[in-house]
Amino acid sequence: MSESVGARAGGAYDVVVIGGGPVGQNVAEGARAAGLSVAVVERELVGGECSYWACVPSKALLRPVIALADARRVDGAREAVTGSIATSGVFGRRNRYVTDYDDTGQADWVRSIGADLVRGDGRLDGVRRVVVGGSDGERVLTARQAVALCTGSDPVLPELPGIEEARPWTNRTATDASTVPGRLVVVGGGGVGVEMATAWQGLGSAVTLLARRPLLPRMEPFAGEMVADGLRESGADVRIGVSATELHRPDPAGPVGVLLDDGTRIEADEILFATGRSPRTKDLGLETVGLTPGAWLDVDETCAVREVEGDWLYAVGDINHHALLTHQGKYQARITGAAIAARAAGQPLDTAPWGAHAVTADFHAVPQIFFCDPEAAAVGLSAAQAEEAGHRVRTVDVDFAEAQGANLWADGYRGRARMVVDLDREILLGVTFVGPGVSELLHSATIAVAGEVPIGRLRHAVSCFPTISEVWLFLLKAYGG
Amino acid sequence: MSESVGARAGGAYDVVVIGGGPVGQNVAEGARAAGLSVAVVERELVGGECSYWACVPSKALLRPVIALADARRVDGAREAVTGSIATSGVFGRRNRYVTDYDDTGQADWVRSIGADLVRGDGRLDGVRRVVVGGSDGERVLTARQAVALCTGSDPVLPELPGIEEARPWTNRTATDASTVPGRLVVVGGGGVGVEMATAWQGLGSAVTLLARRPLLPRMEPFAGEMVADGLRESGADVRIGVSATELHRPDPAGPVGVLLDDGTRIEADEILFATGRSPRTKDLGLETVGLTPGAWLDVDETCAVREVEGDWLYAVGDINHHALLTHQGKYQARITGAAIAARAAGQPLDTAPWGAHAVTADFHAVPQIFFCDPEAAAVGLSAAQAEEAGHRVRTVDVDFAEAQGANLWADGYRGRARMVVDLDREILLGVTFVGPGVSELLHSATIAVAGEVPIGRLRHAVSCFPTISEVWLFLLKAYGG
Repeated sequence: MSESVGARAGGAYDVVVIGGGPVGQNVAEGARAAGLSVAVVERELVGGECSYWACVPSKALLRPVIALADARRVDGAREAVTGSIATSGVFGRRNRYVTDYDDTGQADWVRSIGADLVRGDGRLDGVRRVVVGGSDGERVLTARQAVALCTGSDPVLPELPGIEEARPWTNRTATDASTVPGRLVVVGGGGVGVEMATAWQGLGSAVTLLARRPLLPRMEPFAGEMVADGLRESGADVRIGVSATELHRPDPAGPVGVLLDDGTRIEADEILFATGRSPRTKDLGLETVGLTPGAWLDVDETCAVREVEGDWLYAVGDINHHALLTHQGKYQARITGAAIAARAAGQPLDTAPWGAHAVTADFHAVPQIFFCDPEAAAVGLSAAQAEEAGHRVRTVDVDFAEAQGANLWADGYRGRARMVVDLDREILLGVTFVGPGVSELLHSATIAVAGEVPIGRLRHAVSCFPTISEVWLFLLKAYGG
Repeated sequence: MSESVGARAGGAYDVVVIGGGPVGQNVAEGARAAGLSVAVVERELVGGECSYWACVPSKALLRPVIALADARRVDGAREAVTGSIATSGVFGRRNRYVTDYDDTGQADWVRSIGADLVRGDGRLDGVRRVVVGGSDGERVLTARQAVALCTGSDPVLPELPGIEEARPWTNRTATDASTVPGRLVVVGGGGVGVEMATAWQGLGSAVTLLARRPLLPRMEPFAGEMVADGLRESGADVRIGVSATELHRPDPAGPVGVLLDDGTRIEADEILFATGRSPRTKDLGLETVGLTPGAWLDVDETCAVREVEGDWLYAVGDINHHALLTHQGKYQARITGAAIAARAAGQPLDTAPWGAHAVTADFHAVPQIFFCDPEAAAVGLSAAQAEEAGHRVRTVDVDFAEAQGANLWADGYRGRARMVVDLDREILLGVTFVGPGVSELLHSATIAVAGEVPIGRLRHAVSCFPTISEVWLFLLKAYGG
């Protein structure tokens, strides 16, 4: 694990990146592209949470479940699906996509762009200084231009009696397990909760999903409702409005007992908590530059930390709390990389909305997909969010069944689409699609929202017949005019 | 079959539409929405070629084949696909989507919008006059505002020795057959040819596809190459650069012999000709208004026939030869319906490019998808077409494998994307996607092309990780800047 610490004279770099996940890698790539010297500090696996314990393995587990569900929805194909999902095949593909939890390939990539990879625990030690602690002591790196904090987030576990004894799953265990629990309780109705409930129910667990609020609370309400219906149809027990209050696992090899606030008790083989994230900023040395350890970091449009003078400290990805999504973190990282490069070269920055150095999409056009059955995909603002933000809006809802292409794609197709129109500008503020096979359809909405394409022009964007995408035609027709 | 011919006084209407397919229906709907009286004349089934013998049944046949292929590409799911495709199930769903070749539902829909449905052979009889011939004689309809010709196209059969004796399949037989031929020869490498080769090979036929030119000649060359590879991998025999020269079927119940221009001879159980389309304008009475029967009709941006004075005659859909696609025909029909309504009301028309009364997308942003394996989807201009049109372009190619979402969607994903950039305007002129599961991704490109979204803005349209759509990120990255 020893790497080229301080390969450059005195450990001095233009840019030091703490965190070698997709976000850190993109910052490093942008800085390197501008000819800046870069060190990437990583304490675990290069590639980060996303590559090993989140997006990648979760999608690897989910896709076989969804592919079979999609085939079963088509007469003529359904009859060919006579076997069961092969969990060995599913875990095998998961292991392949996480490269067996070996980061050699990604570490090589970091070096291939000409950055130094420094293994160890990185933390700030005053202005433009980073200390990296490893098994062989501490080393100091200095950053002439910038330090970028890209450390991501950790799962939050609630403080419940018995939670330690219960040894609960988090996103890590839920994505790296290779045994199917007979009974799995999932606590939390956000993205991780519904995706992991979908995956493990599909892999053979009897899943009970517990959520205090309706599922997927940040999306349009119908998204969570339809995903709950889908989970129930797949056999899961979805309970909304309940919380776990106490856990018991007296025998470490035995089942876990879960007491709920409605007085009922569930027994399961494992329990997964998917109850939120906290920033990995506790041990980052934030106090050495006047910031509060453990807090989310407030950043400007280039992801420079607002409370720190001199635009040398950036917080990119989950830890700035804009949108805890790999793709948004990478987007921020591209913009931050360009901003660091421009500032280093003394060039002007374009920080106007939608400019090359402004993370505007973080506020106006964040896309998100939950790969459940049905898939739930949305970009931009929900109707409620748009109204709360003071926009004069009209909401247009369409049943996907209007589009014959949806029915042809899946017999008995059930899905719903919504667009939220800014009546003053005649552009879209948000779009939501819920239904099988809609995940690749979302980017059309993302381009429409981020591109602020006027409705009148969207009418010239013809959707092919017969596709699911033809729902666009019916949305525009329902809007009228 | 007798309907309310002349239900309105003297058979006088504001608008007479000849052809009750999707195109005619959309013209009628637009005119009715403006309060105009409308007659729709249909000689066959209301719903037209698309509903009964083209898009709808072909997609109904194809989708089970593709759904199983998609599941087989995913480890863990593949193992569950232990049975064969059920042709009875496939034909059953096809029959359901074509409503057993009964048009009652669509006829009811025409009446539900307040239009009169007139069954029979419609043809022009001078200015603003239509004669409808039926089993009970002829009736005359007059049109105060407009006559819209929406009759579509017919398959063209080559003049080959023995072609009548061979009783070849056309798109009609290829989509309404309910028996799987043991051996099927498909002549023609355009959309109908490759889709029907895919469907019937998937349903169990041993397909030989004969094409004079590379497949899908209007798309980027790699589209046809990849589709040819896919067909070959599924077991089809794809022969490029050959033509049938002679057919023999001495025994009507026996096989058909096909002689090729390379001297070889093939024997098959059926032969499908998918060798182009001709306009259904032969018996439309075009000569009564000074036009040439049998020709494609040249129209302006509202689909009014250029050679006819007074803007009362429209040719919408296939017969104007802009783009022989249902969705483009419906697009034209929406614009034509609005233009007829505006002219009837004496309102000004917006015929500027991308205006409400201009079929601009017909020339700049036609989307098309072939539902083969891999799927081939494109919008706008190919690189060659863009250069030929005099644009200063740059072509950017990306392998879908760059996007981890593609690999997660299908193990060993193979696909290719191309975007053609107008260097002077920094917008996209065309985009092509070839790969499994790309059909719903196309609309993102269609919005980008029709919306003329600047590249700089597309960089703020973040594609979700991990999706196939993330290919956008790699296209933009490869473009640089």
